[in-house]
Parts: sequence; C-alpha cells; structure tokens
Amino acid sequence: MYQPTSQAHPSLLSWNEGPTKNAIIDFVQSVTDAESTDFIHPSDRIAVFDNDGTLWSEKPAYFQFLFALDRVNAMAKTDAALINTPVLEAAIGGDIDALLDLGVPAILEIVAATHSGMSIETFQDQAAEWLKRARHPVSGMPFTSMVYQPMLELLDYLRAYEFNVYIVSGGGLDFIRVFAEDVYGVPPQNVVGSFGEARLEVERGKPRIMKDPGVGFLDDKEGKPLGIARHIGKRPVFVAGNSDGDLAMAQWSTAGEGARFAMFVHHTDAEREFAYDRESPVGRFDEALDAAPENGWTIVDIAADWRAVYGGEK
Amino acid sequence: MYQPTSQAHPSLLSWNEGPTKNAIIDFVQSVTDAESTDFIHPSDRIAVFDNDGTLWSEKPAYFQFLFALDRVNAMAKTDAALINTPVLEAAIGGDIDALLDLGVPAILEIVAATHSGMSIETFQDQAAEWLKRARHPVSGMPFTSMVYQPMLELLDYLRAYEFNVYIVSGGGLDFIRVFAEDVYGVPPQNVVGSFGEARLEVERGKPRIMKDPGVGFLDDKEGKPLGIARHIGKRPVFVAGNSDGDLAMAQWSTAGEGARFAMFVHHTDAEREFAYDRESPVGRFDEALDAAPENGWTIVDIAADWRAVYGGEK
Repeated sequence: MYQPTSQAHPSLLSWNEGPTKNAIIDFVQSVTDAESTDFIHPSDRIAVFDNDGTLWSEKPAYFQFLFALDRVNAMAKTDAALINTPVLEAAIGGDIDALLDLGVPAILEIVAATHSGMSIETFQDQAAEWLKRARHPVSGMPFTSMVYQPMLELLDYLRAYEFNVYIVSGGGLDFIRVFAEDVYGVPPQNVVGSFGEARLEVERGKPRIMKDPGVGFLDDKEGKPLGIARHIGKRPVFVAGNSDGDLAMAQWSTAGEGARFAMFVHHTDAEREFAYDRESPVGRFDEALDAAPENGWTIVDIAADWRAVYGGEK
Repeated sequence: MYQPTSQAHPSLLSWNEGPTKNAIIDFVQSVTDAESTDFIHPSDRIAVFDNDGTLWSEKPAYFQFLFALDRVNAMAKTDAALINTPVLEAAIGGDIDALLDLGVPAILEIVAATHSGMSIETFQDQAAEWLKRARHPVSGMPFTSMVYQPMLELLDYLRAYEFNVYIVSGGGLDFIRVFAEDVYGVPPQNVVGSFGEARLEVERGKPRIMKDPGVGFLDDKEGKPLGIARHIGKRPVFVAGNSDGDLAMAQWSTAGEGARFAMFVHHTDAEREFAYDRESPVGRFDEALDAAPENGWTIVDIAADWRAVYGGEK
C-alpha cells in the first residue's frame, strides 16, 4: 500500500544535490509563493507524469506488453485454437526483440487479443494477479518494485505543495489503474491513458462494461495533449516524461501563459537500471533530447542525479 | 463566483421536509458513518450529476443549443455564405420547436457548424461572452441564474461529507467547463461530457487544440457509463439525473456492490419552472420514470419537494 515519504515534510532525499534538484525546487518554491510574480493558484497546479520510463522501468519492453505476452501463453494453454494468427504464434515464442521489430500493428494485435472479450473488472483482476505473481526477466523483481524512488518523492513533494498530480500514459487506462493508487498514490480518476473500444452489456440483469478489441484512443505523442484537454481541461504547468512520446505534451503545456516546468528522464545508468535513448525501439528519446535544451527543459541524468533508482537500494 | 452555502454546516434549506429530503439525508448519514455496515470509504464516494434538467433548466431547449443558434445568426451576419445547408437556414429562422422536430442529426449539424474551426480557448471565450450577455427567452434571466438552488445545496452537502462530485452530461465538455467551476463549484477535471473530434495544431510555434466538426464521443444514454468508466474509473455510489438519458448511468451505478443511491428530478412545476416528462423531445422522462419505483430510486417532485427552484426566490 502506498505510503507517502512524509506528509508533513516531503523531501527529495534520493536526488543528489545539483542543478537538476535545484531546478525542481526553485520552480516549486517560486510558483507557490504568493508574493512571487510566478505564483500559480492551487487550482491551476496541474502536474502530469508519463508512466513507462518516467515512473517505472520499461525494459526490455513495456511491462504491460510483457503482461500481454504472458496472457497469450495462458490463452494457448486454455485453448490452442485461440492462437490463430502469425503474430500470436510469434508471441508464444517469447522473443521480445523480434516481436518489437514487428512494430506497432503487431503490438496492438497482441494487446487487442489479450485485453478484450471480458469485463473491465475481470481484466483488472487478471492484471492484479499478474502484478502480484510475475517477476521481471532481468532483475527478478516484482514489476511494482521497479518504480523510481526519486520520482515517488517528487510526486509527494508536488502534492505537499497542492499540485494535482496526474499520470498521462500511452499505456492502458484500465491496466495502470490497477496499481497506480497503491504504488504512486494516484487515484483512478487521475489516470489518463490509452483505451480500447468498449460497450455496456447486461448479463443476468446486471450491466457491466465489456472490453472490445478495437482501439478507442491512443494517448501517445499528439494524443497526449488531447487526452489532457479532454480529461483535465487545463494545460499542465509541470510535465515529466522520458521519450519522444512526451514531446507534444511538453510543447503544448509549456506554451501556456506563465511559469511552466518540463523535465525528461534520461536513461543513462546501465549498471543500476538501463541505458538507452535515440536508438531504442522502446522509449525512444531522440527529438525530445534535442528539443529539451532549446526549450530550457530540465534533463534528469539518472546516473548523475539519482542517489538511488529503486526503493530497496541503499 | 461560486460560494458554498456554508462550508461548515451545509444544509438542504431549499428542500421541503418529507420523504425525498429524508431519503437523501439517510443515505449520506449511513454511508459516512464508520460504524455502519453501509460505510463507504471517502475515496469511493463518487457522486455524478447530469446537468441539463438536473442542475439547471433545459427548456425550451438545451441552453447549449440556444447558444449554437445564436452563433448561427452571428455567422450569418459575418458571412452569409456560411449558411449553406437547409438545416442552417432553418436555424436562422429560430423556430425552436421546428428545429427540434428535425431530430438529432439536425441538432448535431448545427452544433458541428458552430463548435468547430477554432481553438478550445476561442470557443470558450465565445461561450463565456454569450453566458454573460444572453437572456432566457421565457424568464428573461441569465442562463446561469437558472440553476436549481436545492441542487446547489445538495452538491455542497455531499462535498461536506467528502463526496467527490462530478458532472456527467450529454452536453459538451468544453461548454460546461466554462461555467461549472463558478456556478457549481465543479472544476474542469470533474466534468465528463460529449466532445467533438480535435487535433493539435501549431500556429506561429505555439501548439493549440483545434475543434473539428466530427463527433468524438456522445456522453448520453449507454455512453454515460462508458464516459464515467474512462474518466473516473469507478462506479458512482450516488447518481442524479432527470431523463431517459440518465437511465443507463443509474442502472450501471446502482448495480455495484454496497449501498447506492439514485434520484431523478421530475419536472412537475409549470408555475415556477416547466412541467414535462414522457412526451417531451427535450429531457424525455419515460422509461426511467417507470424504472425508478421498480428499483427503489428516489423521484424528486419539484412542485412538492423544492421550497425554491432558483436562487433568487424567497
């Protein structure tokens, strides 16, 4: 269960002293100081965080995709006839790099096959069970232990200064909501994400929402500003991301009037986490890596800026 | 600017004593009593309110539709060539009943023509200006003065007991957000509504979201549970509506586990407001009027239950 680091005095203990930590603190102190010309009213203190690669790891592939692959294997055991396309057959093999090379249509096919044909509640039960049981293929850790301790502290720090913190993810809305409240302290209504088609169905007099295979909304790239506009209705003043998928969100948010802050997590630490940027099929950080300095956005260098990456470390 | 009736001791002063008021109070007291078997944790106290006919009047037609008709007339003055379809020509005439008889496609055409081709910000400036200037064709009142005083008190009452109050409307998201915070104390992120297609556009280096003519999502009837599931991620425990458009939302919400409350406002007061139900093209209350007693839902009889309808009354 989520426990704030300290509600009364949240700190950024896992951040090394230096310009990155100072930039965060300076912004927050300035916009929450009623005497400052940069003051932002609490109702406008909207902070948005990408999830994969920003709040938890995303290698060797998005964790939700690893969940989908496990579901394909479970489906194969239940009824081999369900594995009826080349992509689903490849998914059984479990060669993640080969699957990623197949590109977005293949990924969406695997997600559609494993994220539909059931109610939202049933899907979330499956996801919760997987998150409890499954272990990361490299670290051997539970996936929810691979959240970044410095970012948890940052969420707490912002909330202590009356920021309203949202997750804005290309990942699935129904999936993220399974763990976001416990792990991040972010309640379901503060999660903006991608979602599939769905419909209301009545079974034995009880209505429930069934998940269908089609894509309803992709909350990625140019979709993120749209998702925020529909869900929150305001331009955020604080944006955190880590990839080109977060570039449009950072551009749109910081184009608003008044003080704004954008930061990108740069995965520079092969020892404690993973090191990747411009060439990575997952979490590609290329255009945004160039755009950040041009726009005065803060780049978080994990190797240099984070004292610890995950919560269990000393 | 919105002012709570009394934050410390919110009351239901504009509700007459009787079974309707008692039903509301009994439910709220019961689910907020930690000793009660019906206790609901604050994080699950989700209350949803329809807008048109539930929080403010909706006759002779949805106020947003009256706004759209005024916009058609403004367009005609700017450039007569914009009025290039039979429906838009009919809209110039201003015969509201005749327009309503044309049905939903005509209404959507008028909304599309007046709610697109501009940024969200420009649209909201137009709507704000209209709400300030325009007067209701029957009462002569500003539209935002035609909100129901008993319902404002109910919103305050629920918030005092830590309910998280949302508007869930078939009306437009961008339109409702213009006045919901000032008039109801409901911030933009607590508004769920219909929306059109939109896209991110960059003008002189500044990204902004442009409203396009196509329908993105209709938050009405079976759409309301979907809109709630996507936006809030939980089944509400308290539902207020007034028409068949709210039936699916009430059925889905009250089918959840534990104590649930649903109420429908019945427009029975031709003297102080309007009287209509089964035969009305706007706010038709027919199936839901039959379903309410079968399901133990509360019907609010405006003539009998409300001491005052609007805020200015004695």
